[in-house]
Amino acid sequence: MDQNAQKQRAALAALDEVQDGMTVGLGTGSTATFFIQLLKQAMMERHWQLTTVASSTRSADMARSLGITVKDIDEVDNIDVTIDGADECDWSLNGIKGGGAALLYEKVLAVRSNRNIWIIDDSKLSEQLGQFRLPVEVIPFGAEQVFNRFQDMGLAPSFRMTNIWDRLVTDAGHHIIDLDVSNVNNPYRLADDIKGMTGVVEHGFFLDICDRVIIGTDPIQTMVRPVELKQP
Amino acid sequence: MDQNAQKQRAALAALDEVQDGMTVGLGTGSTATFFIQLLKQAMMERHWQLTTVASSTRSADMARSLGITVKDIDEVDNIDVTIDGADECDWSLNGIKGGGAALLYEKVLAVRSNRNIWIIDDSKLSEQLGQFRLPVEVIPFGAEQVFNRFQDMGLAPSFRMTNIWDRLVTDAGHHIIDLDVSNVNNPYRLADDIKGMTGVVEHGFFLDICDRVIIGTDPIQTMVRPVELKQP
Repeated sequence: MDQNAQKQRAALAALDEVQDGMTVGLGTGSTATFFIQLLKQAMMERHWQLTTVASSTRSADMARSLGITVKDIDEVDNIDVTIDGADECDWSLNGIKGGGAALLYEKVLAVRSNRNIWIIDDSKLSEQLGQFRLPVEVIPFGAEQVFNRFQDMGLAPSFRMTNIWDRLVTDAGHHIIDLDVSNVNNPYRLADDIKGMTGVVEHGFFLDICDRVIIGTDPIQTMVRPVELKQP
Repeated sequence: MDQNAQKQRAALAALDEVQDGMTVGLGTGSTATFFIQLLKQAMMERHWQLTTVASSTRSADMARSLGITVKDIDEVDNIDVTIDGADECDWSLNGIKGGGAALLYEKVLAVRSNRNIWIIDDSKLSEQLGQFRLPVEVIPFGAEQVFNRFQDMGLAPSFRMTNIWDRLVTDAGHHIIDLDVSNVNNPYRLADDIKGMTGVVEHGFFLDICDRVIIGTDPIQTMVRPVELKQP
């Protein structure tokens, strides 16, 4: 089954995670977009009253264009469930996100969500994280210094560009540096090292965050985090 | 001796750290301002050719208004010496900075500097860090969540305000949350915990960074970091 069909199937299955009255976090990217459209449909058909918060201006704009109420993250007390895509996911439900450059806000939503559900097609699954380049969000001031440090670490950094001249600017006003982490055996340690660097705002490793992965194959497959694995 | 006189004396003594041809990092705040003025005077009298980089738009604007060339941080390969103030400094040359809301760029300069010199008056010295509230730079998106987390940690957070309504916005577009860390025994651990939080960009603990502290008493006092204490 092609990837788009899988994304739609996964998005549809994710509706089972939503109930009337919930506060729902909206992810960013092609699969999340399918979900937002299906969510709108479900809200109409099932007369759901939902509050949503969005992980990007793109997703907020899209949801609002469909007539969905989107609140600011600081207007809600907590998020019941966040439904988002992932660029890569391993069998421990750890992943890499940020292909859509929304990793920072996505992670802010994720750490505030009671449950995090990822909806993916099966091309996103991998034995060991690192097939996808790891996005790191950095402040523009002194970004070259951080870039050089990554180069010294052997991580083959590249700035995310919008064209040949211009570095991408995230919703938060930062840049993205993409890294080759295919040779990294311990993502936890690298994640801590990167987050600890001055100039780094956040990275795209999402470790111990996802509660359930829905893969849009036929039949649908799901992976669930063992409760004891989830860190407090 | 009053604090302003001490700041001026310390700033004057810091000129000894500068030589012709160097790239000099300029701090932010009242003491750093004294230094920038004295540096301009020395450049004229001694015919020094210097490159400078600044830790804030304030300091950059001030230096440029005096005719000093200020380069962007990413235009220089490295910084020979950065001269900056500090809000608090203990006997291990660890400190708290960020009273002027410039801690992020100050730290970017500091980690890129071969040597870091702090110029202070003796009111900044303390047995144990925490007399000064610790500034933490956070992204606006979800800042309440980070604030609440700090509250749960017993750190009595407060947003830095410009007036009763408006949160201060840093040069990088972030907010500042000030924390009570007077009961913290291990600043290293707290520093790591805070930097690791999603939404936190940087904190005002400057640990293992300063090489020499110049205190503007009469006579001048200096404290020097033992070489073996400096982390790579």
